[in-house]
Amino acid sequence: LKVFSLNSNPELAEEIAENIGTELGKCTVTNFSDGEIQINIEESIRGCDVYIVQSTCEPVNQHIMELLIMIDALKRASARTINVVMPYYGYARQDRKARAREPITAKLVANLLETAGASRVLMLDLHAPQIQGFFDIPIDHLVGVPILSDYFEEKNFEDVVIVSPDHGGVTRARKMADRLKAPIAIIDKRRPRPNVSEVMNIVGNIEGKTAIIIDDIIDTAGTITLAANALVENGAKEVYACCTHPVLSGPAIDRINNSMIKELVVTNTIPLSEEKNSQKITGLSVAPLISEAI
Amino acid sequence: LKVFSLNSNPELAEEIAENIGTELGKCTVTNFSDGEIQINIEESIRGCDVYIVQSTCEPVNQHIMELLIMIDALKRASARTINVVMPYYGYARQDRKARAREPITAKLVANLLETAGASRVLMLDLHAPQIQGFFDIPIDHLVGVPILSDYFEEKNFEDVVIVSPDHGGVTRARKMADRLKAPIAIIDKRRPRPNVSEVMNIVGNIEGKTAIIIDDIIDTAGTITLAANALVENGAKEVYACCTHPVLSGPAIDRINNSMIKELVVTNTIPLSEEKNSQKITGLSVAPLISEAI
Ligand SMILES: Nc1ncnc2c1ncn2[C@@H]1O[C@H](COP(=O)(O)O)[C@@H](O)[C@H]1O
Ligand SMILES: Nc1ncnc2c1ncn2[C@@H]1O[C@H](COP(=O)(O)O)[C@@H](O)[C@H]1O
Repeated sequence: LKVFSLNSNPELAEEIAENIGTELGKCTVTNFSDGEIQINIEESIRGCDVYIVQSTCEPVNQHIMELLIMIDALKRASARTINVVMPYYGYARQDRKARAREPITAKLVANLLETAGASRVLMLDLHAPQIQGFFDIPIDHLVGVPILSDYFEEKNFEDVVIVSPDHGGVTRARKMADRLKAPIAIIDKRRPRPNVSEVMNIVGNIEGKTAIIIDDIIDTAGTITLAANALVENGAKEVYACCTHPVLSGPAIDRINNSMIKELVVTNTIPLSEEKNSQKITGLSVAPLISEAI
Repeated sequence: LKVFSLNSNPELAEEIAENIGTELGKCTVTNFSDGEIQINIEESIRGCDVYIVQSTCEPVNQHIMELLIMIDALKRASARTINVVMPYYGYARQDRKARAREPITAKLVANLLETAGASRVLMLDLHAPQIQGFFDIPIDHLVGVPILSDYFEEKNFEDVVIVSPDHGGVTRARKMADRLKAPIAIIDKRRPRPNVSEVMNIVGNIEGKTAIIIDDIIDTAGTITLAANALVENGAKEVYACCTHPVLSGPAIDRINNSMIKELVVTNTIPLSEEKNSQKITGLSVAPLISEAI
């Protein structure tokens, strides 16, 4: 068994290797002068079960190509199995044709991974669990709810409500609520008339409670910060937020800093780069979860 | 028949569409806030023979993913055939395992294009013609030598010699020499002992002649500028250089400007961006060649 890290999550990969009692495989992943990726695998992997740790977070296209080229190199070097550990699955939101002539890039990525030669893929909190069906190879789908729930459990809040920021996230909120023995509430966004801005309607009782909003991905943080402010306006005592995948692009950090969110708890499926730093953000590691699944 | 342009060569695509008497298909290729590619095809292409113009030059990984996602979208929108016009084929130099455990990325890219759904691929001056065999779909392989030769023919040089900068390029130099009715010479690089720098040995008579060096790709321009200087030192009257694919990365422009090369003639398979500009560079268009092949 060998674990290799590409360029997206070197620290997480290091932690995973440590947890399973091995060292990271030796390889260098750099760019030629013209930007083409150059991969050198510096130890034999013939007959080995190889694990590659790579999230396809920003820069997503670079990270996808690194992964595909690494799989190609391992395949040609006679690895026994090539297991892709993809804590964050980029393009997961392009999982259906919502309009005419749209691509289904999440399916394309699945096909590319299989074509390159992946034997198995391990992922966390897919934006839609249906993406598992895009693959014809074995998939492991891990969930981040226990890690996030355990963190909040230790806070021993008195009166908690778990909030889903949209209808799509109710199942996830339900799971967290079960673990924390709390009720749930749902933000029911509605546009009263076309071209009139959305109204944040709250379904469920939040009066005087500590609200914890849970989502899978926080990207530009528009939805979640509006939700947080709506919760406070409607009588919540305080608002926490959490998610598995901190994409946090564009205005996200500013929005979070300026919102009513007291603390945002995320995992390290996507590393928090320097620009993504905020005093309000707490990071938890998914390394134990992944190491166990390996 | 519809022609679409992605982001690598909009001007070339425009010219091709004009040549074949049509307008570019309407589509927008942008990035979401997190860097994921978003493609909107804004007209019906059901039942059409669609041509996509895209070189996989820098940023190569972005350009490859744009192309794959576009193919996916066209396929799902029921295009009859999807024809990829790839004037420059990125990763062509990674076409074999030169060392243990190297990827063969040129083959990977061929597999990715087929997996996405390409019906046919049109390319120019592949670094190795063997790359044609990496595909199981029809390939058109066009050559840039006639375009480059015609340009030099008009100069009516008195006494010309065509120079191949290495052994791999002799066939190409031979073709140009036939068109210009000139002899050839070869730069025979040798490393006398390990860790001693290479010696540029010139095979063939260049004394007092106008030398034209021809190559397929000029990347960092190390080889070609050293060759030009060696030619002058060994008695050439003046030195011109030409290539199909002006990659021109890193120190290339500085090296060319500071070299004995009088003029560098290139094609627009890769556009000359602002930073790649030099008074010494002349650009020729491959649009007529490609339009005819379509
Ligand atoms: N990277 C992205 N950033 C923002 N929106 C996206 C991205 N990828 C896909 N989408 C859009 O997000 C929608 C899917 O989100 P959802 O309804 O939450 O499943 C689709 O309409 C997509 O067009
Ligand atoms: N983008 C690139 N830039 C520089 N060298 C490359 C690149 N891609 C591949 N190579 C190397 O170039 C060599 C192939 O060049 P050639 O011998 O001219 O076919 C191989 O040893 C590759 O490792």
